[in-house]
Amino acid sequence: MTQKKRFALIGCGFIGQVHAANLATHPDVELAMLADLDTARSAALAGQMKCTAGEVSVAINSDNIDAVLIASATPSHAELLEAAARAGKAVYCEKPIDLSLARATRVAENVLPLNTKITVGFNRRFDRSHQQLKRQLEQGTVGRPELIQMVCRASELPPLSYLKSSGGQMRDQAIHFFDLLRWLTADEVISVGAMGAALAMPAIREFGDVDTSVLIMQMQQGAFAQLDNTRRTGYGYDERISVMGEKGLAESGSQSPPGMTLYQGKAIIKQGLYADWFSRVQGTYYQHLDAFVRSLNGEDVADLPGLLDGIQAQAIAEAATQSLATGMFCPVGQVL
Amino acid sequence: MTQKKRFALIGCGFIGQVHAANLATHPDVELAMLADLDTARSAALAGQMKCTAGEVSVAINSDNIDAVLIASATPSHAELLEAAARAGKAVYCEKPIDLSLARATRVAENVLPLNTKITVGFNRRFDRSHQQLKRQLEQGTVGRPELIQMVCRASELPPLSYLKSSGGQMRDQAIHFFDLLRWLTADEVISVGAMGAALAMPAIREFGDVDTSVLIMQMQQGAFAQLDNTRRTGYGYDERISVMGEKGLAESGSQSPPGMTLYQGKAIIKQGLYADWFSRVQGTYYQHLDAFVRSLNGEDVADLPGLLDGIQAQAIAEAATQSLATGMFCPVGQVL
Amino acid sequence: MTQKKRFALIGCGFIGQVHAANLATHPDVELAMLADLDTARSAALAGQMKCTAGEVSVAINSDNIDAVLIASATPSHAELLEAAARAGKAVYCEKPIDLSLARATRVAENVLPLNTKITVGFNRRFDRSHQQLKRQLEQGTVGRPELIQMVCRASELPPLSYLKSSGGQMRDQAIHFFDLLRWLTADEVISVGAMGAALAMPAIREFGDVDTSVLIMQMQQGAFAQLDNTRRTGYGYDERISVMGEKGLAESGSQSPPGMTLYQGKAIIKQGLYADWFSRVQGTYYQHLDAFVRSLNGEDVADLPGLLDGIQAQAIAEAATQSLATGMFCPVGQVL
Amino acid sequence: MTQKKRFALIGCGFIGQVHAANLATHPDVELAMLADLDTARSAALAGQMKCTAGEVSVAINSDNIDAVLIASATPSHAELLEAAARAGKAVYCEKPIDLSLARATRVAENVLPLNTKITVGFNRRFDRSHQQLKRQLEQGTVGRPELIQMVCRASELPPLSYLKSSGGQMRDQAIHFFDLLRWLTADEVISVGAMGAALAMPAIREFGDVDTSVLIMQMQQGAFAQLDNTRRTGYGYDERISVMGEKGLAESGSQSPPGMTLYQGKAIIKQGLYADWFSRVQGTYYQHLDAFVRSLNGEDVADLPGLLDGIQAQAIAEAATQSLATGMFCPVGQVL
Repeated sequence: MTQKKRFALIGCGFIGQVHAANLATHPDVELAMLADLDTARSAALAGQMKCTAGEVSVAINSDNIDAVLIASATPSHAELLEAAARAGKAVYCEKPIDLSLARATRVAENVLPLNTKITVGFNRRFDRSHQQLKRQLEQGTVGRPELIQMVCRASELPPLSYLKSSGGQMRDQAIHFFDLLRWLTADEVISVGAMGAALAMPAIREFGDVDTSVLIMQMQQGAFAQLDNTRRTGYGYDERISVMGEKGLAESGSQSPPGMTLYQGKAIIKQGLYADWFSRVQGTYYQHLDAFVRSLNGEDVADLPGLLDGIQAQAIAEAATQSLATGMFCPVGQVL
Repeated sequence: MTQKKRFALIGCGFIGQVHAANLATHPDVELAMLADLDTARSAALAGQMKCTAGEVSVAINSDNIDAVLIASATPSHAELLEAAARAGKAVYCEKPIDLSLARATRVAENVLPLNTKITVGFNRRFDRSHQQLKRQLEQGTVGRPELIQMVCRASELPPLSYLKSSGGQMRDQAIHFFDLLRWLTADEVISVGAMGAALAMPAIREFGDVDTSVLIMQMQQGAFAQLDNTRRTGYGYDERISVMGEKGLAESGSQSPPGMTLYQGKAIIKQGLYADWFSRVQGTYYQHLDAFVRSLNGEDVADLPGLLDGIQAQAIAEAATQSLATGMFCPVGQVL
Repeated sequence: MTQKKRFALIGCGFIGQVHAANLATHPDVELAMLADLDTARSAALAGQMKCTAGEVSVAINSDNIDAVLIASATPSHAELLEAAARAGKAVYCEKPIDLSLARATRVAENVLPLNTKITVGFNRRFDRSHQQLKRQLEQGTVGRPELIQMVCRASELPPLSYLKSSGGQMRDQAIHFFDLLRWLTADEVISVGAMGAALAMPAIREFGDVDTSVLIMQMQQGAFAQLDNTRRTGYGYDERISVMGEKGLAESGSQSPPGMTLYQGKAIIKQGLYADWFSRVQGTYYQHLDAFVRSLNGEDVADLPGLLDGIQAQAIAEAATQSLATGMFCPVGQVL
Repeated sequence: MTQKKRFALIGCGFIGQVHAANLATHPDVELAMLADLDTARSAALAGQMKCTAGEVSVAINSDNIDAVLIASATPSHAELLEAAARAGKAVYCEKPIDLSLARATRVAENVLPLNTKITVGFNRRFDRSHQQLKRQLEQGTVGRPELIQMVCRASELPPLSYLKSSGGQMRDQAIHFFDLLRWLTADEVISVGAMGAALAMPAIREFGDVDTSVLIMQMQQGAFAQLDNTRRTGYGYDERISVMGEKGLAESGSQSPPGMTLYQGKAIIKQGLYADWFSRVQGTYYQHLDAFVRSLNGEDVADLPGLLDGIQAQAIAEAATQSLATGMFCPVGQVL
């Protein structure tokens, strides 16, 4: 029987609390310590989770900790990741590593030689139906990918304050799909064209952001991909990916909670999509954690997003941001 | 190249006009003559179809006619069928042969020895998706049938006058599904239990009819079947059949015309079912005619409903009508 | 803030463990004690749940217990329910109260005057989409029910030993749908006709049971209902209810886990139904518990199945069993 | 009662025969004359349709002709259209007016002052579900369009010879969707970015064509649109349009012929999409003709694609072709 992995969780905000519950539930994990700059917040969560609250530096350096889960504010990620890796801990770091691609790249350069296990928070890879899609693509069911379609439509506008420090729609929202695209196709984006505007929330124009955008991308092995993004819909959370190859189409489509259907007059009325992103992707955090824990226990887990995945997705986001600004197709190179 | 088959059509009402259009369109058919007791009606249709209108007796006996399609009022079917068969014509007779099972049986006894090709108007066998279902069952895809579910729900109440002379819901409406059941399973009903009432149109109680009913049936080879019937829905025309066997379920489901889907708020709103039975089954009349013509041209057409099919379906309708009246399960025997 | 309700759980088998996890999770519940005749089993579960294991009689009579959840073997239900009610405890009792309707009725007669809160384990009422269906029916969206269709198809055959002591398909499996029917329509079954056979597992014929059956039922207010049951399918767990009224159809249909769709050649291949009943209904146990706890906390919870609901559903099962045996429609009376 | 409109049909190839059958069927049309450079072909079709075959110049100039339907080879369109308009005939001209936008523009300049009724062959506007989508957009159901997604995937590769003279994927295939986009949104494309390659049929690279492409477009009123195109799929003909606005999403999705569904093991297998484009769009030719005839009879028919629609869609195709070649976003101006 394997020893439980002792985790320290850094960051006790919304997503930190999600991770805390998963860490507490996982049979092969011990949630050993919590830390947050706001010590009242970490104390409260520790009480609820029946574990210890402590200093961030203790959490990272303690001999009683095997792995660190970084769910603190984005600007702290790079430094915490480097510190934890230097302390020999395995690390699960929420995305992005850093809003600056240069800084994120430096993290990778510093940390990769240390040879510690690291995963970056691209949890959507662990969506049950995206996983099925990946397996079908691996088996060649639809043949070599030719056309990929992705839809990334959040239901509710985030607060202006959030958007101001988000890095923009490409770096904050679309980035999940840049990762999914690379992972699903086992291929690299070489060129991206993007158009966008602030249609839903004109106030964000002031810092150059957009909330509605369309992208086309060319892949190294020849496929073409599309992506559209919006920050709010009038019909719930809509996340979809389809991959067409010579032999057919595989689609991980929109999802709805179970519900009733009404047949009335000339209409059939069904349950709509999940109301918000969290209702749809909730379970993927646990699955991602589970994959990470299995890898810590020596299993070869193919789908785990690593540090280089985090950086390469960010490189696509950079190019897309540039395309938005310049109105030109922008090349995407291999960062590392 | 095969000679065109020369058809005489008897009966120029609604369904006669449907047949006329199909006869005029079919490449291997010549619509040679029309007849109707209402000679103004047959003359008008003949003008439209660019063919001759004539006497019923001429239509049946003329040397220039190969086949007779009987689409006149029900009480005339038996006699016309016998006359046409005696005249050596092939016959396509609308259902039922006669409202009286005894009379219908006598028709069969008289006509079968004459060895002429006869088909009875169970056109629903030629529904594209019922046909697919039949083929799957023949191939054993779901294994031996165990549970069959059938839904037969008309959208609009017919006029009281129609219902008065219809023979009742079992003989008029459910009979199509008794035939579909026998045909799909290649099996016989041996017992039937039925409950029903006049919920939608209480006026029909006066002549003992029902408009809403549920039935269960036992089949000779062990399967059980259900059927529900209504004369009006609030959501269009609903016809469905599913067959479960050990290996799975095959379903010929509800059908809608093509249409748009709206995602709005918490709902997904799709195009409803076909508004009325005719919109759904329209194409089956042509397919049935085509199968009949192919059989006249020597092809072995397995799905054609024959005279004995008409009679055996009627025997189930009799038993169901009796079960409705007595509140008891009623056995169904082999008539001929 | 309300005090947590202290529950004792009796029975630590499969379903007892499901209840234990829910009791441990519910924020307004304290899982105070576990009991099982097999004390090793209760000790193990208590260890896992970090609560006390004790004697059944202690669990029922202790002053530190507010409510008893009975999940032990069926033959013990009646006595435990009576004892717990006499001890002034609220009771959540797994169905059935007793396989003998007479005994179950005596339980009700004994217990009802004690005026304690009791719910019987018809958890399927708390299925999310059945709940939506109920709300639509209450609002009159489809009008007065006329035709109800229910499908109850388990995916995997239970062991012969289970079936031998189950009371038969009507009392063990169909009973959930007798309850759902009464609850959804707020109406009573007055007559039932049933046909069935042992098609999937011939060995059960020896004790007179069936595994495949079809039923029709008449309701007091005029509607007709159908139900089919099977103990195994080749396509997963299939539970469906639809209610047609004058104004339309409301359907709580089959459910599948989220999954990918493949378009290939002439087919569209989707994720199939839930593999087994538990995957589909799992969440309803928690919802039922939650409703019960809310009622203990003084809330008026309309959907809670009570003792009389348990008995009346059993009366329908009795009549259905009799109809299977006699080949006659059987009346259903009001038991209490 | 309105006089029947007398049509001459020019061109008796595949699509000419489709038009011939529709002209022969329409109650307000008389198919008066057929013409084709291949007089054997026109004679054969005339025999079948029971009408006259004649010279092209006669067809265009005869006093007994009200309208000319041009379905001949593309290079002849411009001249025939001008001649027919000068002869005072109403004209239904298959798309494109001419592969050269300059030439097509000259046609418009020559013909528009003549004030005759002209429609260009963008028949897909008359797809039943696209029409529903248009009506919903007009009513503002989803609000102002923000994101439009279009899929245009033909099932079977056309012959190389066809592709060689087609003008390329943008001018030949995508052009239908440029028209649909303008029509549905009542808006104009101002910029287009396109990527593409010959993945399915490398031989077409020799004349610079592509068979797989993705496009993004910006609309004057702020919306963004996507389109992907392929010349062959492994799963039938896939045509889809969806429009998202602030209030929801309206989707005219993929279409399948009616068919059976199979539930087996872990899969639900449904009828696939229409096998080819013609099976899906077949009915739109008649609807387009009908709209044109109604406009000839004085009705105000909003959806009819006119000469300027033909030219403006072509201008988008030019810009898209240029974007494919240059790897830059290309502006689209108003041609006339």
